[in-house]
Amino acid sequence: MKKTIITAFLFIAFIGINMQRTNAQKFDRSVRTAENFEPSIPHPEQDKAAAEKLADLEKKTGKKPNIVWIIVDDMGYGDPGCYGGGAAIGAATPNMDKIAAEGLKLTSCYSQQTCTPTRAAVLTGRLPIRSGLTRPILSGDKITANPWEDEISLPTLLSNAGYNTILTGKWHVGELEGMRPQDIGFDEFYGYYSAPKEISQGVDWHRYPDLTMNPDYMKTFNEIKTNTHLIHGFKGGKTEEVSEVKSLEDMGRADQVLADFTVAKIAEFAKSDKPFFLEHAFLKVHADNQDNPDYRGLSKAKYQYKNAVVEVDMHIGNIVKALEEAGVLENTFIFITSDNGPQMDAWPDGGYTPFRGAKGTTWEGGVRIPGIAYWKGMITPGRQSDDVFDLMDLFGTSLRLAGVSNDKLPTDRYYDFIDQSSFLFNEDGKGNRESVYFWWGKELMAVRIREYKQHIKVVIPSAPHMWIDYATIQNVGIAPWTFNLYIDPKEEMPVGHRRTAWLATLGAQLKVHAATFKKYPPKNIGL
Amino acid sequence: MKKTIITAFLFIAFIGINMQRTNAQKFDRSVRTAENFEPSIPHPEQDKAAAEKLADLEKKTGKKPNIVWIIVDDMGYGDPGCYGGGAAIGAATPNMDKIAAEGLKLTSCYSQQTCTPTRAAVLTGRLPIRSGLTRPILSGDKITANPWEDEISLPTLLSNAGYNTILTGKWHVGELEGMRPQDIGFDEFYGYYSAPKEISQGVDWHRYPDLTMNPDYMKTFNEIKTNTHLIHGFKGGKTEEVSEVKSLEDMGRADQVLADFTVAKIAEFAKSDKPFFLEHAFLKVHADNQDNPDYRGLSKAKYQYKNAVVEVDMHIGNIVKALEEAGVLENTFIFITSDNGPQMDAWPDGGYTPFRGAKGTTWEGGVRIPGIAYWKGMITPGRQSDDVFDLMDLFGTSLRLAGVSNDKLPTDRYYDFIDQSSFLFNEDGKGNRESVYFWWGKELMAVRIREYKQHIKVVIPSAPHMWIDYATIQNVGIAPWTFNLYIDPKEEMPVGHRRTAWLATLGAQLKVHAATFKKYPPKNIGL
Repeated sequence: MKKTIITAFLFIAFIGINMQRTNAQKFDRSVRTAENFEPSIPHPEQDKAAAEKLADLEKKTGKKPNIVWIIVDDMGYGDPGCYGGGAAIGAATPNMDKIAAEGLKLTSCYSQQTCTPTRAAVLTGRLPIRSGLTRPILSGDKITANPWEDEISLPTLLSNAGYNTILTGKWHVGELEGMRPQDIGFDEFYGYYSAPKEISQGVDWHRYPDLTMNPDYMKTFNEIKTNTHLIHGFKGGKTEEVSEVKSLEDMGRADQVLADFTVAKIAEFAKSDKPFFLEHAFLKVHADNQDNPDYRGLSKAKYQYKNAVVEVDMHIGNIVKALEEAGVLENTFIFITSDNGPQMDAWPDGGYTPFRGAKGTTWEGGVRIPGIAYWKGMITPGRQSDDVFDLMDLFGTSLRLAGVSNDKLPTDRYYDFIDQSSFLFNEDGKGNRESVYFWWGKELMAVRIREYKQHIKVVIPSAPHMWIDYATIQNVGIAPWTFNLYIDPKEEMPVGHRRTAWLATLGAQLKVHAATFKKYPPKNIGL
Repeated sequence: MKKTIITAFLFIAFIGINMQRTNAQKFDRSVRTAENFEPSIPHPEQDKAAAEKLADLEKKTGKKPNIVWIIVDDMGYGDPGCYGGGAAIGAATPNMDKIAAEGLKLTSCYSQQTCTPTRAAVLTGRLPIRSGLTRPILSGDKITANPWEDEISLPTLLSNAGYNTILTGKWHVGELEGMRPQDIGFDEFYGYYSAPKEISQGVDWHRYPDLTMNPDYMKTFNEIKTNTHLIHGFKGGKTEEVSEVKSLEDMGRADQVLADFTVAKIAEFAKSDKPFFLEHAFLKVHADNQDNPDYRGLSKAKYQYKNAVVEVDMHIGNIVKALEEAGVLENTFIFITSDNGPQMDAWPDGGYTPFRGAKGTTWEGGVRIPGIAYWKGMITPGRQSDDVFDLMDLFGTSLRLAGVSNDKLPTDRYYDFIDQSSFLFNEDGKGNRESVYFWWGKELMAVRIREYKQHIKVVIPSAPHMWIDYATIQNVGIAPWTFNLYIDPKEEMPVGHRRTAWLATLGAQLKVHAATFKKYPPKNIGL
């Protein structure tokens, strides 16, 4: 059924493309340099300047720069203070605010609309529809193929380029052998295959009495619930279960354990001759949040979600401090973000976005996320930019930092990333990406170019606020819904019918995108 | 009819008060020191520290500090960059952002829900329901009494305390003799009695063809339209019409003219032995916004509203620069704010708030506004506070700065302001206000205490977004709508029925407030 829809769409795209391509290209500043790479906006001068800065630094340090990604789970755009939340909503985030003030705050940074697709996209440089990882793999799911089998992951490419690579924290992109972090390219993994959130369903009788107080139900639950073991695995080596999250207290402390590990690892890595790539993926602030019993009620608001935001902010401060104390801050590119918008189904154990929608939708609330780039000496303090950035661009930017040229990538597949290094590492750098495409599973939903966003399908909840469990995917009417995000950041009043040129232009852009699937078809792994 | 409603409400309040007062007081930290003054939270130590700081400064400068209020018209909470907007929504505000970063950013600062009530409240220290100025005075309105007749305005009190007092810009609190700025206490007025926005209805045939192209209609319009003259008036002296706004170009330039006047006046005031109180009230960014023809399309978004935001920000930068160049920055308390939330009826010529609602409602979107306090040397740079601040508190704080004690105020009327000087002028100052009350005309709508807000009446629009022209005032159901603004800043999911203690406590607080009208009845001027 779904396959038919895509095929039909591609067919329409194909016949429409010749007619509309010219329209799209008038607005579209980007240039395609290879058939299987996403086109980017040419900025030869800033590219040259950034390359020189990187070369100068390498001369000084004698190695490639370290790369640290810090990914908070389900944190909303509005949660950090520097994005309008923080103390104003009862959960101060002094560390993120300080790092943003001393770095670059991106205000149009996009993820996928849920967890697994985002995590897969940043590590493959490809949209989930291309890798097959179009939605989270849930307990009981049976997939028909290992999507990683023929993917070339960023940690693989960075390892080959001489990097130590490690993932600390949440994985959630497959826990079968062959799909684990240590199988797909990371030298080391210290974390959880999925998040051990489900254990609260089995032990928290305040929240889940229907389950926890019914022995029959509990028996079934224990048979199918996901792995809650803390795993320590090595590429080509031993994988062991270090411990298990068994109680709400264990769950509350889990991020402290992970942060301590990362902090210790940084000290170790700093002594190595090799640069390192560290992805620290928090379990928090995904529902169900449990307070760390060693410091309960950290936030002014006192709610578990808010306490989790403050705790995560504290760990972020400590991770950056560890880099500083190890003397590698000036040779480390740091990026702090979230994997998608806030999950409002779990409210009040959910975050805040000023935008419409939430996790699980392609409204701004679901996909527009904090994006803080920090690099002492390389990123000018106090910068802010509204140029669009897709988290997949971390893939391309990281390759650039590691000196891995695009020639090392195969031509048999399409790559959606953009190298944004010259945007990030020049004081007045302009964004190199023209368009962001929004997918929901296997459905192409929307596109953004500059301040315009056009939806051809939307997620609409049948609830007073954004309750995704109670939402449907709907086709929009005769004219795609086109919003000017500058005058209507909350996507309330479409202006498409007053902007027929843009309506056609953005529509054509969607068709150009859809046409890439003609030569490079989607991968289906049974999700 | 309306009078009956109020009377009925007061009666209920009166019989309920004895029963519920105790409940309210358990949550309420504030203490009433005089029957006719709003109770405030006692902070003797910080009061002492602030008083000493002020005394030290006065010893140094030899005079009382200057007071500068900068009031933007209809600017939304989310418009300035430092509140989450700015460049992210196509209108960068570098000056406001810088001033906020070097001062105190208030994130729970409240106005009244429309223009006139706010402007009256800040100058009287009293709620509009007490002064009678419960709504804007519109063309053709006939009021039954001059509300200023028995009000004692802030400029009167400051004049008596030795201040030069001036209002530049929009007045809109009465243009009949006896109600004009120069009649009610200001030494000087240079501005417009109401905003000359209506002229665009008479000359802009793009927007108003039904009016401008119909000679009969235009004749009537010209007879009833408001005064669009730029007025220069002096207390007890001559009042003259300097010029008239006749075209869209004149309208576009009007704020430049006002800003130039203020800048020149600052240089003049700085040479005086007397301190000064300057209220600069912009005409922009109230719809209809017309670009200043000398610099069209100032903003990245290019829309008139956005251009107006950038223009206003530029003027704010110049006003602060003028204070610096005149050498008085260290002796001047500056407060930058808006008179209410964005007017969405005029969209796209309207602003941005992340909150629910807009101007004309008592939702956060209507009344929560930017509030930036700046005073070089007296306010610690980089401060932010979520403690509640009502713009009426500028009245009490200004009296404190001028050394006017509350004894100078009459006891025959109720004062709603709080002196917030010890909150503002201590590095870790705590807010002195416990509750903010929200009125819509003569209707008591809601109260906020700390992070809780309770609505007994709400404004609900019959339109997909907050279209006030299409809204009604509605009573809420059996349980007042109670929101925790930390976990639900957008007021979507009431938690009152899960917080019965708070439900009763906040209800009791409303009744305590309503009871103040028993001894001090509302004033009715026929609005």
